[in-house]
Amino acid sequence: MKHKILIIQGPNLNLVGIREPGIYGDMPITEINQRLISLGSELDTEVRVFHSNSEGGIIDELQNAMDWADGVVINPGGYSHTSVAIRDAIAAIKLPVIEVHLSNIHSREGFRNNVVTGAKCQALIVGFGWRSYSLALRGLIEQLDQ
Amino acid sequence: MKHKILIIQGPNLNLVGIREPGIYGDMPITEINQRLISLGSELDTEVRVFHSNSEGGIIDELQNAMDWADGVVINPGGYSHTSVAIRDAIAAIKLPVIEVHLSNIHSREGFRNNVVTGAKCQALIVGFGWRSYSLALRGLIEQLDQ
Amino acid sequence: MKHKILIIQGPNLNLVGIREPGIYGDMPITEINQRLISLGSELDTEVRVFHSNSEGGIIDELQNAMDWADGVVINPGGYSHTSVAIRDAIAAIKLPVIEVHLSNIHSREGFRNNVVTGAKCQALIVGFGWRSYSLALRGLIEQLDQ
Amino acid sequence: MKHKILIIQGPNLNLVGIREPGIYGDMPITEINQRLISLGSELDTEVRVFHSNSEGGIIDELQNAMDWADGVVINPGGYSHTSVAIRDAIAAIKLPVIEVHLSNIHSREGFRNNVVTGAKCQALIVGFGWRSYSLALRGLIEQLDQ
Amino acid sequence: MKHKILIIQGPNLNLVGIREPGIYGDMPITEINQRLISLGSELDTEVRVFHSNSEGGIIDELQNAMDWADGVVINPGGYSHTSVAIRDAIAAIKLPVIEVHLSNIHSREGFRNNVVTGAKCQALIVGFGWRSYSLALRGLIEQLDQ
Amino acid sequence: MKHKILIIQGPNLNLVGIREPGIYGDMPITEINQRLISLGSELDTEVRVFHSNSEGGIIDELQNAMDWADGVVINPGGYSHTSVAIRDAIAAIKLPVIEVHLSNIHSREGFRNNVVTGAKCQALIVGFGWRSYSLALRGLIEQLDQ
Amino acid sequence: MKHKILIIQGPNLNLVGIREPGIYGDMPITEINQRLISLGSELDTEVRVFHSNSEGGIIDELQNAMDWADGVVINPGGYSHTSVAIRDAIAAIKLPVIEVHLSNIHSREGFRNNVVTGAKCQALIVGFGWRSYSLALRGLIEQLDQ
Amino acid sequence: MKHKILIIQGPNLNLVGIREPGIYGDMPITEINQRLISLGSELDTEVRVFHSNSEGGIIDELQNAMDWADGVVINPGGYSHTSVAIRDAIAAIKLPVIEVHLSNIHSREGFRNNVVTGAKCQALIVGFGWRSYSLALRGLIEQLDQ
Amino acid sequence: MKHKILIIQGPNLNLVGIREPGIYGDMPITEINQRLISLGSELDTEVRVFHSNSEGGIIDELQNAMDWADGVVINPGGYSHTSVAIRDAIAAIKLPVIEVHLSNIHSREGFRNNVVTGAKCQALIVGFGWRSYSLALRGLIEQLDQ
Amino acid sequence: MKHKILIIQGPNLNLVGIREPGIYGDMPITEINQRLISLGSELDTEVRVFHSNSEGGIIDELQNAMDWADGVVINPGGYSHTSVAIRDAIAAIKLPVIEVHLSNIHSREGFRNNVVTGAKCQALIVGFGWRSYSLALRGLIEQLDQ
Amino acid sequence: MKHKILIIQGPNLNLVGIREPGIYGDMPITEINQRLISLGSELDTEVRVFHSNSEGGIIDELQNAMDWADGVVINPGGYSHTSVAIRDAIAAIKLPVIEVHLSNIHSREGFRNNVVTGAKCQALIVGFGWRSYSLALRGLIEQLDQ
Amino acid sequence: MKHKILIIQGPNLNLVGIREPGIYGDMPITEINQRLISLGSELDTEVRVFHSNSEGGIIDELQNAMDWADGVVINPGGYSHTSVAIRDAIAAIKLPVIEVHLSNIHSREGFRNNVVTGAKCQALIVGFGWRSYSLALRGLIEQLDQ
Repeated sequence: MKHKILIIQGPNLNLVGIREPGIYGDMPITEINQRLISLGSELDTEVRVFHSNSEGGIIDELQNAMDWADGVVINPGGYSHTSVAIRDAIAAIKLPVIEVHLSNIHSREGFRNNVVTGAKCQALIVGFGWRSYSLALRGLIEQLDQ
Repeated sequence: MKHKILIIQGPNLNLVGIREPGIYGDMPITEINQRLISLGSELDTEVRVFHSNSEGGIIDELQNAMDWADGVVINPGGYSHTSVAIRDAIAAIKLPVIEVHLSNIHSREGFRNNVVTGAKCQALIVGFGWRSYSLALRGLIEQLDQ
Repeated sequence: MKHKILIIQGPNLNLVGIREPGIYGDMPITEINQRLISLGSELDTEVRVFHSNSEGGIIDELQNAMDWADGVVINPGGYSHTSVAIRDAIAAIKLPVIEVHLSNIHSREGFRNNVVTGAKCQALIVGFGWRSYSLALRGLIEQLDQ
Repeated sequence: MKHKILIIQGPNLNLVGIREPGIYGDMPITEINQRLISLGSELDTEVRVFHSNSEGGIIDELQNAMDWADGVVINPGGYSHTSVAIRDAIAAIKLPVIEVHLSNIHSREGFRNNVVTGAKCQALIVGFGWRSYSLALRGLIEQLDQ
Repeated sequence: MKHKILIIQGPNLNLVGIREPGIYGDMPITEINQRLISLGSELDTEVRVFHSNSEGGIIDELQNAMDWADGVVINPGGYSHTSVAIRDAIAAIKLPVIEVHLSNIHSREGFRNNVVTGAKCQALIVGFGWRSYSLALRGLIEQLDQ
Repeated sequence: MKHKILIIQGPNLNLVGIREPGIYGDMPITEINQRLISLGSELDTEVRVFHSNSEGGIIDELQNAMDWADGVVINPGGYSHTSVAIRDAIAAIKLPVIEVHLSNIHSREGFRNNVVTGAKCQALIVGFGWRSYSLALRGLIEQLDQ
Repeated sequence: MKHKILIIQGPNLNLVGIREPGIYGDMPITEINQRLISLGSELDTEVRVFHSNSEGGIIDELQNAMDWADGVVINPGGYSHTSVAIRDAIAAIKLPVIEVHLSNIHSREGFRNNVVTGAKCQALIVGFGWRSYSLALRGLIEQLDQ
Repeated sequence: MKHKILIIQGPNLNLVGIREPGIYGDMPITEINQRLISLGSELDTEVRVFHSNSEGGIIDELQNAMDWADGVVINPGGYSHTSVAIRDAIAAIKLPVIEVHLSNIHSREGFRNNVVTGAKCQALIVGFGWRSYSLALRGLIEQLDQ
Repeated sequence: MKHKILIIQGPNLNLVGIREPGIYGDMPITEINQRLISLGSELDTEVRVFHSNSEGGIIDELQNAMDWADGVVINPGGYSHTSVAIRDAIAAIKLPVIEVHLSNIHSREGFRNNVVTGAKCQALIVGFGWRSYSLALRGLIEQLDQ
Repeated sequence: MKHKILIIQGPNLNLVGIREPGIYGDMPITEINQRLISLGSELDTEVRVFHSNSEGGIIDELQNAMDWADGVVINPGGYSHTSVAIRDAIAAIKLPVIEVHLSNIHSREGFRNNVVTGAKCQALIVGFGWRSYSLALRGLIEQLDQ
Repeated sequence: MKHKILIIQGPNLNLVGIREPGIYGDMPITEINQRLISLGSELDTEVRVFHSNSEGGIIDELQNAMDWADGVVINPGGYSHTSVAIRDAIAAIKLPVIEVHLSNIHSREGFRNNVVTGAKCQALIVGFGWRSYSLALRGLIEQLDQ
Repeated sequence: MKHKILIIQGPNLNLVGIREPGIYGDMPITEINQRLISLGSELDTEVRVFHSNSEGGIIDELQNAMDWADGVVINPGGYSHTSVAIRDAIAAIKLPVIEVHLSNIHSREGFRNNVVTGAKCQALIVGFGWRSYSLALRGLIEQLDQ
C-alpha cells in the first residue's frame, strides 16, 4: 500500500458505543476501528489501530511510529487537556499528527478549551462523532499523496 | 441537487493566497472557493460562497441561510475569538454549522485558544489549510445524507 | 408629543419570537416593537425602533439620535459583552441610555456578567422578557417628565 | 387585594436620603417605601416592606415570604456581591424575586459586577434610583396578572 | 453519656425536605435531626442540634460549644464558600469540627470548590445526602472513643 | 469629656487572651477594653466598646454611632476581607473610622491582603497586638483635637 | 455476599504507615486494607483492594469494575488534582464512586482544592485518616442496601 | 507627490471636538483632518482621510490601501482593545501602520492597556491630542523618505 | 538614651509638603522629621532619619541598622509594592520593622493592596498622614520598653 | 533659548547601537543624543541628556528637573513595566513627561503591555526607533509653544 | 563504592540526540548515560540509569530507590509541570532528589515556569544540556561525602 | 589564565552566613567567595567577585563585564523575581550568564517561581547552598573549554 497510518485511541475510548451514547454516539469502537481500516484500504493505505488508557503507553506508541508510519491520527481523550509529555512526544517525532475528538470539546467544561497536545499537532477535527476519524484519515492521506 | 450549503468566508479571507502564504498557504481564495463548489457538485450539493469583513454582515448572512440552506461551513477569522453576537446567531438559526480555520489556531497566540463562536458549532476543523473546508463540506454532506 | 425615544434592537433580536422561545419568549419582535410604540403613544412619546446586526450600524444610529431623540433604550445583544466602541458611543452622546436584555444575563454563561456597554448606561433592566423594554420605556419617560 | 408582594431593604438602605444623596438620591427611604405601598394599592396589591442589615435576617424573611407572598422585590445592598447564602435562599423559595439597586452597580467598583444573588433572581433593575423599585413592582405585578 | 456533640445546621437547611428534593433529598430536616439524635443515643452520645440562618449566630454557637461539647458537625451551607469569620471561629475553638454538605459541592458552580471554612476543619464529608451527617457523627465518635 | 469614640470588636475577638495566644497575644479582651477606656479618660475622651459576631450587628452599631460618636475604631476580624456591606456602612456614616487588627494580616493567608472594609476607612493599624487599638485611639483623638 | 466493592489505592498510597506518619497516620496500608476487608465481611460485602501508581492502570481497573463491582471507593492521591482521564472514566462507568483522602486536602497547598476527579464522584470524604475509607465503605453499602 | 498615506478615523472619532472636549480636546475632527492634509502637502505627501464606525468597514479600507498607499495612520478607537479581525488585517497588508490615540489610553480603564491591534502595528503614539496624528504622519513620512 | 531608632524615608518622600498636599498633607518633610526627632527625645530615644530614592540605598541602610539600631520605621513608598529585595532585607536583619504610609494605600490603585515589604514587617500604619510615623515611633518604643 | 527639556535614558540604553541592532536599531546612543540636542537647537530649545541604569538615580534626576526643566522625555527601559517609584515621581513633579521606547513594546513579551510609569505620563511614543525621541521632543516643544 | 545514585530519565528523553538537536543537543542519550556512569566511577559512586515514558513507572522506580539508593537525579520531562503524583512520591521517599532539565525551561512556554515536581526536590539544574546531569551528579556526591 | 569569570552577588547576599543559616547555610559569604576564587585558580580561571544591593549597580557591572569577562555567574537575590531591567541587561551583553540561588526558590513563596532574569540566562542552578556557585562555575568553565 502507498501509506501507513497509526490511529491511537486514548483513555476510555474502548468504552465508546457501550457507554454514554448521548455524548459519544452509539457506534461501538470496534465498528469505528473497522470502518477506518476499510476506508484506509479503499485509499490504498494501511491503517493500524492502537488503544491505551496510559499516558506512557501512548508516548511509547508515538515513538514507535517513527519506525514505520507516515502519519498519526490520535484521540488523546482527557490527556488532550493535561499532558505536556504527550505534547513533547508529538513535537519530537516530527510525523504529521492529527488530533481528533468525538465531541466538540469547546462546548463542554471550560478546561477542555485548553488543548495542550493539539498545539503541537498539524490539525484538529472535533465534534463529528466517528466521522472525526474518517475525515482526519482522508485529510492526512490527501496530504501524503501530494 | 440533494443539499444546499452556505460557505461563509470571514474577515481577511479574501486575501488568502495573495498574502502570507507561510501561514495560510498559496492557493488563491478564488481557487479554494471554486474547488469547494466543484466538490459540492460531485457530491450532489449546491454550494454558495459568501464573503464579508463585517461582523454584522456575517450575522445577516447566517440568518438568511435559514431560508434556503441545509447547513453552513464558516471561517469566522478573527471574529472566532471575540464575537458573542455571531455565537448567538449560530445558536439561534439551528442549522448545523461547522467552523473551519486554515491554520491550527491552537499553535498561535494564546487568545486564539478561545473559540467563542465554535462553542455553538457542531464541529470544528482547523489546520488543514484549504482542506479544512473540503473535509468540513464532505463531513457535513455525509451527515445530511444520513 | 412630549418626548422622542429611540429603541435600538441589536444583533439577532429580529429573530425573537421565531427562534428559541425557551430563552427569549414567544412574542414576535414585530409585536414587541408595536407594543412599545403603542405604550409610547399612551405616554405622549414618539417611539422609533431601529434594528441592526452590525456594531458600526448601532454606533451610527446612536450618534444620529443626538439630532432628534431625548433618550435611548438599547438591547445590544451580544455586543453588550464585547463592544468598547458602542460603550464609547454611549458615553459620547450624553443622552440618557437604558440597556435592556430579554433574559437575565447573570444566569447564563459567565462572560455575560461583563457588561461592557452597560457601564456607561444610566440604568439596566434584564430578565423581564419583552417587559424589560416596556419598563425601561416607562422609567425613561418618567425621568424625562420630571 | 389581588397580590401580595414583599419588599426587602438590605444593609444601609435605611440611610437612603439621609446620607450620600450624590449616589443614592435625596428621597428619604421612608418616602420611597410609602410610595411603593401607594403604588401597590393603585395596582390592587398589598406591599409589605422589611428592612434588615443582617444577612441572616434577610434569609429568615425570604423564607417567611413562602407563607404569604406572591413575589419579592429585594435590594440586597452589599450582600448582592458576596452572599451565597442569600442566593441559595432565593433559589430555594421558588417565588419570583426581582433584584433592584438604586445606582448602576456596573459603573462602580469592579467587584460590583459580580451579582451573586441576582443570578438566581428572575430579573434585575439597576440605576433608576427609587424608580428601580417602582418599575420592579410594576413589572412583577404585570407578570402575576398574566 | 460518653460524648456530647453539637450539630450546626446553617442557612436554608431548615428547608431541606420541603424544597428542592432533586438536589437535597426528600427527607425533612426534622427527620434528619431526629435520626442523628437517635444514632447518637445508640453510640452513647448526646447530640444537640442548632439551626441558624445567621453567620453571627453560627459563630456564637461555635463559641458556646467550647463550654460543653466534645466536637462539632457543621453544615455551613453557603457560608462555606464565603465566611472567613466562621473559619476563624473554627480555628479558635480548637474542638474537632467536621464539615458536611448534603450535595457534592464539587459538582456544582465553580465557586463551591472554594471551601473557606473547611480548610480549618479536621475533615469533610460531602455528597452523601443525609448520610453525610450520620457518617460524620459516627466518624467523630470513633475518634473521641480512641 | 471632649470626644466620644466607639470601639467595635468584631467576630471572635471576645476570645482574645483565652485562645491562640501565639497569634493574638495573651492579654484578655476584657483587659484590653479596660485599658482603652482608661486611655480614653486620660485623653479626656469617652470610649464605649461594642462587641458582635454578627455582620448585621456591626452595621447597626456603625449606623447608631452617627448619633453620638466623633469617631470609630473597628476591628472587623474576618469581615475585613469579605464584607461589602460593612464597607458601605463605613462609607455612608462619614465619621472617621480607623481599622485595626491584632496581627499583621499581610503575613498570613493571601486572602487577608484584601481589605474590603479598610478601603473606606481613613487609616489602618495592623500587627501591634493590643497596641493596634491604643495607637489608633491616640491617633484619632489627636486628629479630633486639631 | 450481598455487595461487591472495589477499593482503589492510587499513587504512593502503598507507602502509608511507612513514611510521613505526621500527615498520613502511622497505620500501615496493609493494615488499613485488611480492616476494610473485615468491615466489608461484617456488612456482608466482598471488598477487593487494588493498588497502582499509574493513571492508566487506575483507569483500566475502573473499567474492569463494570464487570463485577456494585460500587467503588477510590483514593486517587495526586491524580485527584490533575487527571481528566480518570474523571472521564468515573463518569463513563456509571457505578457509584466515592473519593477519599487520608488528609484534609483543603488545608494543604492551594492546588489541592481543585478536585478534578471528585467532581464526577457521588461523594467525597477527606481528612479522617484511615477512617475516610471505612466511613466511605459504610456509606456506600448503606446506599446499596436501600 | 512623493508618498501617499491613508488616515483611518475609527468609531466615534467623527464626534471629536463636538463632544467631551475634556478628554479628546476641542478641535473639531474636520479641522484635525484638514491640518493633516495640509501637513502632508508641506511634506510632499498625499493624505486621504477615511472614517467609519464599522469594524468591517475599517478592514475593507485597510485592504484597499494595499492598492495605492505607502503607509497608514489609524485611530481604531474602541476597536483597539477588542478587534482581532483588524489586527489580522494590519498583519496581512504588510504596509507600515501607525496606531494613534488622542488620549493616553494607559491612564484610563484597565482594559485599555490591552492593545490588540497595536501589537501588529509598527509604532504607536498616544496622549498628544490631535498632535498624535501629526507626529505619526511626520514620523511615517520620515521613514518612507529614508 | 534608652533606645535608638532608624527612620527610613523612601522614594519621593523628600517632596512631601512641597507637592501634592491633597494626598500627602502640607507639612514639609523636614518638619515631619524634626517632630519625630523631638518625639524621640521626649520618649528618651535617639531617632536618626535617612532618605533615599534608591532601592539599593535603602537595603544598605537597613543592613547598617543592625550595627546600632533597636528598631526601624520605614516608609518604602512605591517600593512597598514591588521590592522583593527590600522584603528580604527586612526579613534578614531581624530588627523589629514598622512600615508606614502617609495615605491609606488600600483606597488607591489596586496594585497598592499588595504590600510586598510589609509582609515581613512586624506592623503597619497607613493613612494617618504624618501621624503614621509618630504613632509607629511611639508603638515601637512602647514595645522596646517592655 | 525658549524651553529647556530633560531627556532621561534609562537602563541599558547606553548600549544602543552597540548591541542588538535587530531590535533597537544600529544608530549609536551617542549619535541619537547628539541629534536630539541638535533638533532642540533648531527648535530654540536646550536639551540635556541624562543616563542612569539605576531606578533611584532616575528618580533623583526627575526631581532635580523641577528646578530647571519645562518638560521631560523619558525612556525608562525595563523600569517602565515595574517601577511604582518612578511612576510616583512622575506624578509628583507635575512637569509634562513623555515616555518613549525604541521598539513597539506591545509586540514583545506580554508583561511589556503593562506600562506602570506611562500611566502617569502625558503621552507615549513607541516603536519608531530613534525617531520615538525626536517626535516626542517635537511634540513636547509644540505644546510648550502653545 | 561509596555511594549509589539512581538517574531517572523521564518521557521522550530516550529520543535525545536523535531528534531536535537544536533544543536538546546532539549527544545521544546512550552516550550521556554512559558518561554519567563513568563520572560516577571516577567519584567512587555506582550510577544506575532508568528510563520510562510513564508517570506510574517513574513513581514505582522512585519508591524502589528507597531500598538501595543514596540519592536521585531525575529529569521528569513534561511531567515536571503537571505531576502532583511524582511530586508526592519525591516528598515521600525522603532521599535527596535533584531535578535536571537539558534546556532552560524558563525560556520556553510560560507553563514550563511551573515546576510541580521540583518544589519537593532539594535542588534543580536547568539549561546546561547534558552537563545538567553531570553537575547534578557531582553536586549530589559532594553532599553525600560531607 | 585561560578564562575570566565575573561572579555577581546581589542584594542581601553580603549577609549570608551571618543571618538565617536555616535557609541560606552557615558558611560566611567571604568564605564562599574565597572558595570560588580558589576553585577558579584550580581550573585555570580568574574569578572576580562583585557585590551590590542596587539593581542599577548590578546592571552597571554586567555591562562592564563585556570588556573583560568570558562569562558571568549571578545570584540576583530578590531582583530575580522583579527586575526586567537586569533581564534586559543579561540579554544585551550576550555573554553566557548562569543564574544561581542558594535555596530552592521553587519551594518558597509562590512569587519566587517567576524568574524574570533567569529566562534570559543560559542556565540556572538553585538549592545547592554554596555549591550552587561552585557547580555553576565548573559548568561554565567546562563550556568555555569546549
